[in-house]
Amino acid sequence: MREIRQPGAYHYVFSRYVEPIARVASGETVTIYTEDAFESRITSAGDRPSEVLGAYLNPQTGPIYVEGAEPGDTLAVRILGIEPTRDWAVSAFIPYFGGLTSTRLTRTLQEPLPERVWVYRLEGEMLTCTPRLRFPWRPFMGTIGTAPELEAISALTPFDHGGNMDVPDVRPGNTVYLPVRVPGALFFTGDCHAGQGEGELCGVALEITAKVTVRFDLIKAKPIAWPRIESADELMAVGSARPMEDAARIAYAELAGWLVELGWDRWEAYEALTQIGGLYVGNMVDTYYSLVAKIQKRYAFAEQAGG
Amino acid sequence: MREIRQPGAYHYVFSRYVEPIARVASGETVTIYTEDAFESRITSAGDRPSEVLGAYLNPQTGPIYVEGAEPGDTLAVRILGIEPTRDWAVSAFIPYFGGLTSTRLTRTLQEPLPERVWVYRLEGEMLTCTPRLRFPWRPFMGTIGTAPELEAISALTPFDHGGNMDVPDVRPGNTVYLPVRVPGALFFTGDCHAGQGEGELCGVALEITAKVTVRFDLIKAKPIAWPRIESADELMAVGSARPMEDAARIAYAELAGWLVELGWDRWEAYEALTQIGGLYVGNMVDTYYSLVAKIQKRYAFAEQAGG
Amino acid sequence: MREIRQPGAYHYVFSRYVEPIARVASGETVTIYTEDAFESRITSAGDRPSEVLGAYLNPQTGPIYVEGAEPGDTLAVRILGIEPTRDWAVSAFIPYFGGLTSTRLTRTLQEPLPERVWVYRLEGEMLTCTPRLRFPWRPFMGTIGTAPELEAISALTPFDHGGNMDVPDVRPGNTVYLPVRVPGALFFTGDCHAGQGEGELCGVALEITAKVTVRFDLIKAKPIAWPRIESADELMAVGSARPMEDAARIAYAELAGWLVELGWDRWEAYEALTQIGGLYVGNMVDTYYSLVAKIQKRYAFAEQAGG
Amino acid sequence: MREIRQPGAYHYVFSRYVEPIARVASGETVTIYTEDAFESRITSAGDRPSEVLGAYLNPQTGPIYVEGAEPGDTLAVRILGIEPTRDWAVSAFIPYFGGLTSTRLTRTLQEPLPERVWVYRLEGEMLTCTPRLRFPWRPFMGTIGTAPELEAISALTPFDHGGNMDVPDVRPGNTVYLPVRVPGALFFTGDCHAGQGEGELCGVALEITAKVTVRFDLIKAKPIAWPRIESADELMAVGSARPMEDAARIAYAELAGWLVELGWDRWEAYEALTQIGGLYVGNMVDTYYSLVAKIQKRYAFAEQAGG
Repeated sequence: MREIRQPGAYHYVFSRYVEPIARVASGETVTIYTEDAFESRITSAGDRPSEVLGAYLNPQTGPIYVEGAEPGDTLAVRILGIEPTRDWAVSAFIPYFGGLTSTRLTRTLQEPLPERVWVYRLEGEMLTCTPRLRFPWRPFMGTIGTAPELEAISALTPFDHGGNMDVPDVRPGNTVYLPVRVPGALFFTGDCHAGQGEGELCGVALEITAKVTVRFDLIKAKPIAWPRIESADELMAVGSARPMEDAARIAYAELAGWLVELGWDRWEAYEALTQIGGLYVGNMVDTYYSLVAKIQKRYAFAEQAGG
Repeated sequence: MREIRQPGAYHYVFSRYVEPIARVASGETVTIYTEDAFESRITSAGDRPSEVLGAYLNPQTGPIYVEGAEPGDTLAVRILGIEPTRDWAVSAFIPYFGGLTSTRLTRTLQEPLPERVWVYRLEGEMLTCTPRLRFPWRPFMGTIGTAPELEAISALTPFDHGGNMDVPDVRPGNTVYLPVRVPGALFFTGDCHAGQGEGELCGVALEITAKVTVRFDLIKAKPIAWPRIESADELMAVGSARPMEDAARIAYAELAGWLVELGWDRWEAYEALTQIGGLYVGNMVDTYYSLVAKIQKRYAFAEQAGG
Repeated sequence: MREIRQPGAYHYVFSRYVEPIARVASGETVTIYTEDAFESRITSAGDRPSEVLGAYLNPQTGPIYVEGAEPGDTLAVRILGIEPTRDWAVSAFIPYFGGLTSTRLTRTLQEPLPERVWVYRLEGEMLTCTPRLRFPWRPFMGTIGTAPELEAISALTPFDHGGNMDVPDVRPGNTVYLPVRVPGALFFTGDCHAGQGEGELCGVALEITAKVTVRFDLIKAKPIAWPRIESADELMAVGSARPMEDAARIAYAELAGWLVELGWDRWEAYEALTQIGGLYVGNMVDTYYSLVAKIQKRYAFAEQAGG
Repeated sequence: MREIRQPGAYHYVFSRYVEPIARVASGETVTIYTEDAFESRITSAGDRPSEVLGAYLNPQTGPIYVEGAEPGDTLAVRILGIEPTRDWAVSAFIPYFGGLTSTRLTRTLQEPLPERVWVYRLEGEMLTCTPRLRFPWRPFMGTIGTAPELEAISALTPFDHGGNMDVPDVRPGNTVYLPVRVPGALFFTGDCHAGQGEGELCGVALEITAKVTVRFDLIKAKPIAWPRIESADELMAVGSARPMEDAARIAYAELAGWLVELGWDRWEAYEALTQIGGLYVGNMVDTYYSLVAKIQKRYAFAEQAGG
C-alpha cells in the first residue's frame, strides 16, 4: 500500500491555493502520516504551551488530489485504521483556550487558567498519565476535510468542508462523506487523537502522531452540503457553527435531508428524529462548535410498507 | 404504597406560592399520577394544537412537601418505575415551537410549519404510529423539580431547580438530585414521555399519562447548585441555559465540582472530563436548552493511589 | 400629587402573588419612591459587595394596582420626572457578574475580577468619582414592568413584562408601554440610574435612590407582546433574550409589528427598518440581554400617498 | 489624484493569495472604484435574486499594496469622500438571508420569505423607492479590510481583519484603523451603501456603485487586534463574532484596551465604559455579527489629574 508523508512544510489551512502532495484514484487505499496538533513541540510536563507554540497550529497532511473528483461529487473516506507512531500522547491547558475559560472570541478581563501539560504513556491499549488519568486507546482523526471553493480556512476551524470537527465518530470502521468543491477534492487530514471525551472540554485531546489508513471512493454528481458519517449501525450528520444551537439545527436538518434522500417524507423524518435521534457535542472549544446528529440504521431503513 | 393524585387544578409553575397536595417522609416511596403535557387535550390526528391548546401547558402534579427538608439540603429522588395509564402516546407539531422552526424567542417573519398530530398506539413494549414511526417504550419524566426560593417558574422552563429538562436519563433505575430551596422542598413532576430522542427535535416527545414510583431521600446540609443524576454506571450534571454553550459550560462545571467533592484535584478533573466525559443534548426546544455532562463511575471513582 | 412609598418589605419578584401597595386611576399622576439596586447596602469604597449583598437584590416598589386594567389592555406610563433622593450614586464590580467576566450562567473555572466600589458625588448636573470618572446626570428607571400572568419573575430579569431592562430610554419625557396580563396590571418600578452607558458593561450603573413621577394611562383592549417606548421623535421596541441576536430579532419584529398596526405593509416595514432603523444594546449583563430597536417618527408616520 | 479600478476579475476573498492591483505609498490619497454587492446583476424590481445571483458575491476592489507595510503595523485609512457612480441604489430580500428569517446557518424547515427587489432613485441627497421608502444619502463602505495572515476569508464575512462589517461609521470624515498582517497590508474595499440602518435588518442595504477617496497612513510597529474607527468626536472598536454577545465583548474589550494604551487604568476604563460607552449593532445578518463600542473623546481624553 502506498504511504503518503508531507514532503515539505505542513499546511495550516484547507485551501485550493496549495499544491497537491499526492494523487490517488477513486477506490484506492493509502496510508497517511500525520503530525500532532502542536507539530510535536510539546513533549514534557515542563513545557509551557504559550512559549513553545506559535501562530501556526494543527498542521495538516495534504492536499491529496483524488483523480476524477469534480465539484458536485461526494468523497467517501473509509477509515480502515489508525496506528500510533509514537508511544505517548499529550494534552495541555493553553491560556485563553478551552471550554471552561474565556477565550479570544468569548472575551473577559480575567486572568487565564494555569498552563499545564499532561503527558500520557501509551502501553498496549491504555494511556496513562496519573493513577486517575488512565484511559483506553480510542483513536480518531480530529481534523479531516476537503478544500473550500473559495476560502482558505484555518486548520483550527470546522465548517461545512469538514476540518477541525473533533468528532470521535471519525474513527476506524466508519466512513466520512465530504463535499467536493474543487477539482480533485483536495483532501487534508491530521490532528489524530488517541482518545477524547465529548466536547473536548479543555480544548486539547490526547494528541498523537499517527498513520491512518483510508480508502477513497467518489460518489459522482451527488453533492452534500455538510459532512456525514456512516458507521455499521448509524447515519450521522455534523454541523459546525456558533452559537451551539445553530450547529445542532444544521446537524439535524442535514440528517433529515439524508432521510428524505432515502425516501422519507420530510415531516415523518422530523418526527422520527424527535423520538429516536441522537445529538452529542463533538467539540465546544473550536472556532465553531461541532454537533453530531444521528439515527440508527434500523430506523432509517425501516420499510415504509409492512414495517 | 401511597398514591398521590392532583386533588384539584394542576399547577403550571414551580412555585412556593402554592399549597402542598401531600406530605412525605424522607425514605418514603410513593406513586404519583401525572397528566400529559397537553392535559390530554390532543387525542387524535385531526386535532389542531393551535385550537385545542391554550396558555396553560405542561400541568404538574405537586407540590409534595418532604418532611424535614430545609434550604441547603439536597433531595434525592430515586425513580423506581414509570407505568403508562393509557395505551397511546401523542406527539405534535405546534406552530412556532420546536427545534427546526422559528419560535416566539427566535423570531422570524416566516410562516409556521404545518400543524400535525402523531398518535402512537402502545402495545407491549412498542409504540406505533406508522410503519416507519415505530419505537420502543423508553419512559422517563420530562419535568421534575423543586420550588425556587423566590420565583415562580413556568412548568415549560428548565433551570437550576430542575423543571422541564426533557432529559432521557430521568428514567427508572436512576436517581435525580435536586436542590432544596424552600422548606419542604416542594417537589413537582409531570410530562412523562414514553420515549424521546436527544434534543426533542420537534418539541414534543411521545407524551403520555403515567404513574411514577419514586423514593424520596434527604441529604441534609449538602447543597447543590444544579440538578444531578446518578445511574448504575454514570454520574451526570444537567445545565439549562441559552445559548446552548452556556448550558454545556454549566453542565461540565457542575460535574467537575462533583468530582472535586469526591476528592479530585480540580485541574485533574478538568483534564479527565476532557478525555472521557460525555455531553449530549436533552432538549433544544424549551425556553432554556438542557445539556447533560457525564462520566462513568469507574473513572470518577478511580483510586488516586495505585490506580 | 400622591406619593407612594413601599410600606413594608420590598419585592424581589414581578408577581401577581403579592398584595398591591397602592391603587391608582387611569389618567392619574403619582410620585413613587425607589430604593437602589443594593437596597443601599453599598455606601463606601471600602465595602465588599460579596459580603454586604445577599440573594435579595434589586428591590422594587409596588405592586401598584391600576383601576380598570384588565388582561389584553396596554398600560402607558409617561415618565414626567426623576429626582435623586440622595447626593451620591454608586457603581461596583461584583464577583462573577458583568459583561467582561465569566458569570453564573457563562461559567468558567477562572478567578473573578477584583471587587471594587465606585462612589460618585452628585453636584448640580454632574456625578464625580475620580477626575476621569465624571459624567452628567442622565437619569432613567432601570427596572419597570407589570406582573406576568403566571410566573413570578426575579426583579433581576428583563423579559416581555418589562422588568430589569436597563434601557436608558426609560427616561423623563418618554412613555413606556407595558402589557397588562393580570387584573390591575400590578405595576412595579425601581433601580433608578443616575446614568448608564449602552450595555451597562460592568453590570452596575450609577445606582441611586430616587423619586419618579409618572402618569398612568390605560389603552383598553389593545394588547402588546413586548414593551415599547415612545419619545418625542422615536418609536422603540425592547426585546430581552439570550443569545443577544434573539433579543435583536424580537425588538425588530415587534417594531415591524407596530408599523403594521400604523398601516404599513409588513414587507415595506421590513425594508424601512433595514435602511433607517436603530438598534442599540441596553444591557449585556442581566439574565436576559435587552436590545432596543427604533425608528424616527418622521419615517414611521410618513404618508403612504404623496410622500 | 490617482484612480484605482479593478483591472480584471473582482475578488471574493480577503487573501494574500492574490496579486495586488496597485501600490500606494504611506501618506498617499487615491480614489477607488467599487462595484455593488451584487456586481450590478440586480437592476429592476422584476429581477429574482435567487436566479440572477450565484455563489460569487460582494466583489472587492483590491488588493492594494501599501509600500512599507509590515506585519505588526497598523494601517490608518482616512475616508475623505464617497461619491455615487450611478443614480440608483438597490435593496432586496434574498431567500434564507437576513435578520428576520431562518438562514443557511440558523436553519429551519420553513419556507423562505418572498423575494423582493427595491430600487431607489438617487436625486440630490435623497433616495426614493416608494412614498414611504424615502431616505437621505448617508454613504459608507460596507466592506473594508486587509489580508489575513493565513486564511482567505470570504468577502461576505467580517472578522478581525475588517471585511464585511456593514458598520455605518465607516463613512467620510472618519478614519478606520486596520491590522497589517502581511507585507503590503493588501487592502480591499467594496460594497458601498448609500445608507443603512443599524443591524442591516433584511441583509441588504442601499447598495450602490461608487468611488471612494481615501488616504493611507502607516503607523509603524503598533499592532491592533481588531478594527478601530475614529471620528471627530468618538473612538470606536468593532467586534465581529457569533453569538452577538461575543461580538459585544470583543468590541468593548478592545475599546478598553485602547483606553489603556492612552494611559488609563484598566479598571477605571471598565467603569467608564459602563457609565458612558455606546454599543450599537452594525449588522445582524452576516456570517458574523458586527457590534461597535464607542466612547466620546472628551471622556477618553479627560485629564487624569486636575480633571
